[in-house]
Amino acid sequence: MKLTILGCHSATPRWDAHPTAQVLEVRGHLFLIDCGEGTQVQLRRYKVKFARIKHVFISHLHGDHFFGLVGLISTFRLLGREADLHVYGPKGIKEAITLQLKLGKSWTNYNLYFHELESNASELIFEDEKVSVKTIPLEHRVYTNGFLFKEKPKARKLNVEAARAAHIDQSYFQKIKLGNDVVNEKGDLIPNEHVTFPPDAPKSYAYCSDTAYAPAIVPIIEGADRLYHEATFLEQHADLAEKTKHSTSKEAAAIAKKAGVGTLILGHYSGRYKDLEMFRTEAQELFERVELAEDGKVFEW
Amino acid sequence: MKLTILGCHSATPRWDAHPTAQVLEVRGHLFLIDCGEGTQVQLRRYKVKFARIKHVFISHLHGDHFFGLVGLISTFRLLGREADLHVYGPKGIKEAITLQLKLGKSWTNYNLYFHELESNASELIFEDEKVSVKTIPLEHRVYTNGFLFKEKPKARKLNVEAARAAHIDQSYFQKIKLGNDVVNEKGDLIPNEHVTFPPDAPKSYAYCSDTAYAPAIVPIIEGADRLYHEATFLEQHADLAEKTKHSTSKEAAAIAKKAGVGTLILGHYSGRYKDLEMFRTEAQELFERVELAEDGKVFEW
Repeated sequence: MKLTILGCHSATPRWDAHPTAQVLEVRGHLFLIDCGEGTQVQLRRYKVKFARIKHVFISHLHGDHFFGLVGLISTFRLLGREADLHVYGPKGIKEAITLQLKLGKSWTNYNLYFHELESNASELIFEDEKVSVKTIPLEHRVYTNGFLFKEKPKARKLNVEAARAAHIDQSYFQKIKLGNDVVNEKGDLIPNEHVTFPPDAPKSYAYCSDTAYAPAIVPIIEGADRLYHEATFLEQHADLAEKTKHSTSKEAAAIAKKAGVGTLILGHYSGRYKDLEMFRTEAQELFERVELAEDGKVFEW
Repeated sequence: MKLTILGCHSATPRWDAHPTAQVLEVRGHLFLIDCGEGTQVQLRRYKVKFARIKHVFISHLHGDHFFGLVGLISTFRLLGREADLHVYGPKGIKEAITLQLKLGKSWTNYNLYFHELESNASELIFEDEKVSVKTIPLEHRVYTNGFLFKEKPKARKLNVEAARAAHIDQSYFQKIKLGNDVVNEKGDLIPNEHVTFPPDAPKSYAYCSDTAYAPAIVPIIEGADRLYHEATFLEQHADLAEKTKHSTSKEAAAIAKKAGVGTLILGHYSGRYKDLEMFRTEAQELFERVELAEDGKVFEW
């Protein structure tokens, strides 16, 4: 999985601090997660081949997470896009986008599908043979979902040396790759796992923004390789976090710890802090493996 | 008048080519004209004191002229704005903005007034004792207005030397400034124009974007000091200009010439051209005084 942070700052966009948007590359997919104002410029800036985006996931309808979507959709039209585009987001997103396109008489010349979300329980919203995406119901001032991206279990991998040692003819290798037991040159049935390596563990990514401290999400994100969790405030502003239904860095770390994730990535910083290292310091009081999101930063695992 | 170009490129925003937005400073007003995506960041970048903006004029509802408005309105709220904000634009703009604010439960904490435009004739849409703003009906694929900003005639200026020479007591100077004739120490009535200088001529600015070649606007913009006229295409793409209801550089110059304006400012360039100097060259075949808009460029007159 390859995660590119396009923007990881809260509230108002500034020249050097972009609102939330990120792209996740996984098994041939390029998923766009949230789309604050200016996201299309950030996509160009970081040379993301954004024509490849087919699925956009919008957590909630605050401007810093979705005001860039209508512009991106328009730009796709201007660039002559033909591929379908799927948008997943809270109920109302379809009306907001289509009204604006209608006012500009700017219909898309590609198929644009809206998948409006209303459930307060985690649900499977996308699935193919390689990846699944589930919602993570969050607690914020408006209806909000995080998203859990998970690879499907992969096939076991052929162990060529073991297959040769077991006197299996090369013409059977494809059959082995597909998971079958095969008969060798001597007529013995060779179990698949004797001539294959176990597959890599399926990778996963949990995106949780924006949200108050919400331990109810722990069972959904349990064991995720990477957890992006908003940390709008430091401990000194815990009262503001509570009031605005955001999290402190320490609360994000508490969720990471309870869920036993691999690495916690912090973001959605309030603009009031000059030194972002304090977010790491405060989180590490509870959880060791902490990374700070930065606009343009790439995480690969 | 002081005009700051925040963006002057057509269609899709890019890192170094921003969609249309400009601010006009005149007699204490700071008018925002159009508001493409990213305008709020451009306002910060060029250090415009944008809390002073009280009136926003939107020409039409294509994204590159208005997708930045909802974000700016939201940012004003986050920054604690209390002053009224007036938005002038095509019918539908109110619904587009209020729907998005409603979806995010993000009401403004200042008064937001929409003045929706529908007329196909030029109309006076703003007036105070210093400035008037009229629409300039344009020809585009959707309902579009340009805007004519005009200073009101100013008061004549006191000629202190002449007033003293005419034996007028200083206590009458204020009365002279207000345009009155006054009686001097000898009891003679001194006509106002004998002891004042004529006022500076009222200044004016005509903004015309987006539009096909529309000579019907000439009587409205006649003699404007500065005319910003879109020039999306060069002569070689005149067919595209006609098809998309945009103008070529030469057509913009033809309008400037017919209207006898002071200086023509070109902008709204298509992204296909590397060398913008060609816009000037082609315009100057018809009209000498041509300037090229650039993001961040300031014009003062």
